[in-house]
Amino acid sequence: MSEKITSRSQNYSEWYTDVVLKAELADYAPVRGCMVIRPYGYGIWENIQQALDWRFKATGHANAYFPVFIPYSFVQKEAEHVAGFAPQLAVVTHGGGDELEEPLIVRPTSETIIGHMYARWIKSYRDLPVLVNQWNNVVRWEMRTKLFLRTTEFLWQEGHTAHATAEEAESEARQMLDIYADFAENDGAVPVIKGRKSGSEKFAGAERSYTIEAMMGDKRALQSGTSHFLGQNFAKAFDIQFLDQDNQLKHVWTTSWGLSTRFIGAIVMTHGDDQGLILPPKLAPLQVVIVPIWRNAEQKAAVLENTNQLKTALAERLTVKVDDRDGVTPGFKFNDWELRGGPVRVEIGPRDVAQQQVVLARRDTGEKITVPQEGLPSRVEGLLANIQANLFKRAAAFRDAHTFHLTDYAEFKTLFEGEQVPGFILAYWCGNTTCEEKIKEDTKATSRCIPFEQDGQPGRCIYCGAAASEKAVFAKAY
Amino acid sequence: MSEKITSRSQNYSEWYTDVVLKAELADYAPVRGCMVIRPYGYGIWENIQQALDWRFKATGHANAYFPVFIPYSFVQKEAEHVAGFAPQLAVVTHGGGDELEEPLIVRPTSETIIGHMYARWIKSYRDLPVLVNQWNNVVRWEMRTKLFLRTTEFLWQEGHTAHATAEEAESEARQMLDIYADFAENDGAVPVIKGRKSGSEKFAGAERSYTIEAMMGDKRALQSGTSHFLGQNFAKAFDIQFLDQDNQLKHVWTTSWGLSTRFIGAIVMTHGDDQGLILPPKLAPLQVVIVPIWRNAEQKAAVLENTNQLKTALAERLTVKVDDRDGVTPGFKFNDWELRGGPVRVEIGPRDVAQQQVVLARRDTGEKITVPQEGLPSRVEGLLANIQANLFKRAAAFRDAHTFHLTDYAEFKTLFEGEQVPGFILAYWCGNTTCEEKIKEDTKATSRCIPFEQDGQPGRCIYCGAAASEKAVFAKAY
Repeated sequence: MSEKITSRSQNYSEWYTDVVLKAELADYAPVRGCMVIRPYGYGIWENIQQALDWRFKATGHANAYFPVFIPYSFVQKEAEHVAGFAPQLAVVTHGGGDELEEPLIVRPTSETIIGHMYARWIKSYRDLPVLVNQWNNVVRWEMRTKLFLRTTEFLWQEGHTAHATAEEAESEARQMLDIYADFAENDGAVPVIKGRKSGSEKFAGAERSYTIEAMMGDKRALQSGTSHFLGQNFAKAFDIQFLDQDNQLKHVWTTSWGLSTRFIGAIVMTHGDDQGLILPPKLAPLQVVIVPIWRNAEQKAAVLENTNQLKTALAERLTVKVDDRDGVTPGFKFNDWELRGGPVRVEIGPRDVAQQQVVLARRDTGEKITVPQEGLPSRVEGLLANIQANLFKRAAAFRDAHTFHLTDYAEFKTLFEGEQVPGFILAYWCGNTTCEEKIKEDTKATSRCIPFEQDGQPGRCIYCGAAASEKAVFAKAY
Repeated sequence: MSEKITSRSQNYSEWYTDVVLKAELADYAPVRGCMVIRPYGYGIWENIQQALDWRFKATGHANAYFPVFIPYSFVQKEAEHVAGFAPQLAVVTHGGGDELEEPLIVRPTSETIIGHMYARWIKSYRDLPVLVNQWNNVVRWEMRTKLFLRTTEFLWQEGHTAHATAEEAESEARQMLDIYADFAENDGAVPVIKGRKSGSEKFAGAERSYTIEAMMGDKRALQSGTSHFLGQNFAKAFDIQFLDQDNQLKHVWTTSWGLSTRFIGAIVMTHGDDQGLILPPKLAPLQVVIVPIWRNAEQKAAVLENTNQLKTALAERLTVKVDDRDGVTPGFKFNDWELRGGPVRVEIGPRDVAQQQVVLARRDTGEKITVPQEGLPSRVEGLLANIQANLFKRAAAFRDAHTFHLTDYAEFKTLFEGEQVPGFILAYWCGNTTCEEKIKEDTKATSRCIPFEQDGQPGRCIYCGAAASEKAVFAKAY
């Protein structure tokens, strides 16, 4: 409900938590580091699921479900993987009243158990490619948690594919990153940079990791979706082999890719303002809220009758709610729906009924206009498209205004002096882990990705001055 | 793939497992009692989810998500609940490398943790009713498992609602049972009996449990969905109180209701035959499979061109697949799709192309007819509707033919002599647990439910002869 939230400029982190809690997106669970996703927040997740799921299916993927429990020994089979995940595991030691012979872990990700099954299912080149996705919950024991951004349990989808050749697997991994970027920008209105992770930032067990990186409202980077070319690492660890057309037994090449409820955090932090959440129309659980206004019973009857007509017309193509609560003022309702980020509000009072008009208020700019009721659905559709585009444009402009192309390391350090968060630094980097680590020590900025888009010019590493062919994005990150 | 499956009459249980494995609905996981739901089986689950989800939303429910982990102490708060679930719990004792102070259980069902959250969210009568559902995974440590029917982990939905009055909660529980029955009969083509569970069969913690009971092809009963009026048991255990309009602080009344991946087992066992699976069109992942037939490259090109035209036309309203695999015969493909239960098969060869016709084969009866290509989509739609209706009619007739209205206990015992499974026995029962137990001892039949539909006549308990006002259904059950 419309309680006061911390101002965004005053304390961004408290503002974020206030918005998430008070807009009723999520709440803290009674288990350390876990959250409850409340219906309004889950409605956003359902829209994210739909927006991704049709894209997965259109590119030939099918959904499946693998167990939540994984034998502990499985995780140990891929050396980098176990090193990466061992500190984060939740372990089941007892079942049905007895101690288990082998402890089970609660999946932190499913490469291992899926690898085991693929080894059983894949025999011949005819069985390839295998293109599978699953929507599920995973658990990673996190030390410092934050609603949506980093929680012990989270919801996500994890795609797992197996291919006959490295090229095919590579192109799958790149295709899925493109899908994430397309979804993030077109549905989430969140501009992203597509790129490759550095060696120290890649997924434990991957040959190459790809990422979409977004800039939040406090200028920190948020990794918003990742896709991995796993080479033959898991294929060899789990013995996933196929008889190829040339009659040779070969290991498959695999990929994995995931996007999680973290993306809800990205939406909050990309678009929100001091009044609260601003939802992109394509992912909003309620695109239109109608607030009927009356002073007495006679007015109420007339206004509600007209309201319901409008609702029926709008609901044919849009998600609509009438806020006809008694006992709270229209002003309270306005604030409440602003906090909850509803893209368009329709206000209708007795005079509007008489003149067959309504007031349209858009959440992104706060603008209000009076429009005739005739043709309202297409007008609102147009407005929603406009809001969707505007949110993207605004976020892209914000990011570009806080992106610095640097060649001088002293300048780099100055920007991060104190606890400053300047935004994204684009700078040549030689690819050497030592330079990356030194930069992190000096500035707390990490390499977020090496963008696919490069200008093709050679340069010199911003830290060591050695020859470098690519720029990287450095930023403080969530 | 089309391997031989055990005949249904020879060994029903092996037939069932063969169908599930060979139609690639599911596979055994490397964790005791767990299964992997493969894409074709998961496609059925996605259709079940859609069919239920719109019904839930149309009756005012919203989805949410609560954590997979529950503090052990929560389960102990409701006495009957802990007694019922304690033997089945999976326990997490370690997280992030350390032993936990309080062990966590992996949710077997979520009344407790949801009760805890509702106590935080519900303050006033204005907050009621709370109508929430979640789609998730749960874990119950089972001794004897069987794919889909009883697995350590399974997928389901669990609805949890809170109301101001007992009457409202009761009517919610009954409404949700009606929704399950409507779904089972209209989408699953599975005829069900709606009724109340006996005291010994009800959910641990419920005041009253309602169930839909279906008869499988081996005449055993399968509990296919349940709905519970929980009274104030969980409200009191978790202190869920609200300030009512009369300014009194009161405990809410709650319900819960669930339907799981077990229903996929119900579909297999209700409709399947010696050739394999028979899927009801409304839940089939692929409603139409087109098998193009050719002998040489020239024929192939012509047949595939025509096939793709037909596919495009059919795919506008139906889910369609073209089976254009090389290297396997049309006969092999026919068997394969029969095993997988595809409702309608379209066969098209060179002569069919020439005459602009196709052969339609329906899976339920095996009938084949030649029809013109013109108007094919509406013809196939009509055929699918006919198959859907026929599957229901056939299953209902089978159930009715194996339902016995008895008044004589000797007859009851005779029917179950040896290891016989006669079907459903409808008989007066006094409601006394002792009689129920004795019947179970003598016959292995348990009371499945006391059907809502009764003839209103008084009678005498089939076991003890005492006055009885209601009949119960007794059967051997899964």
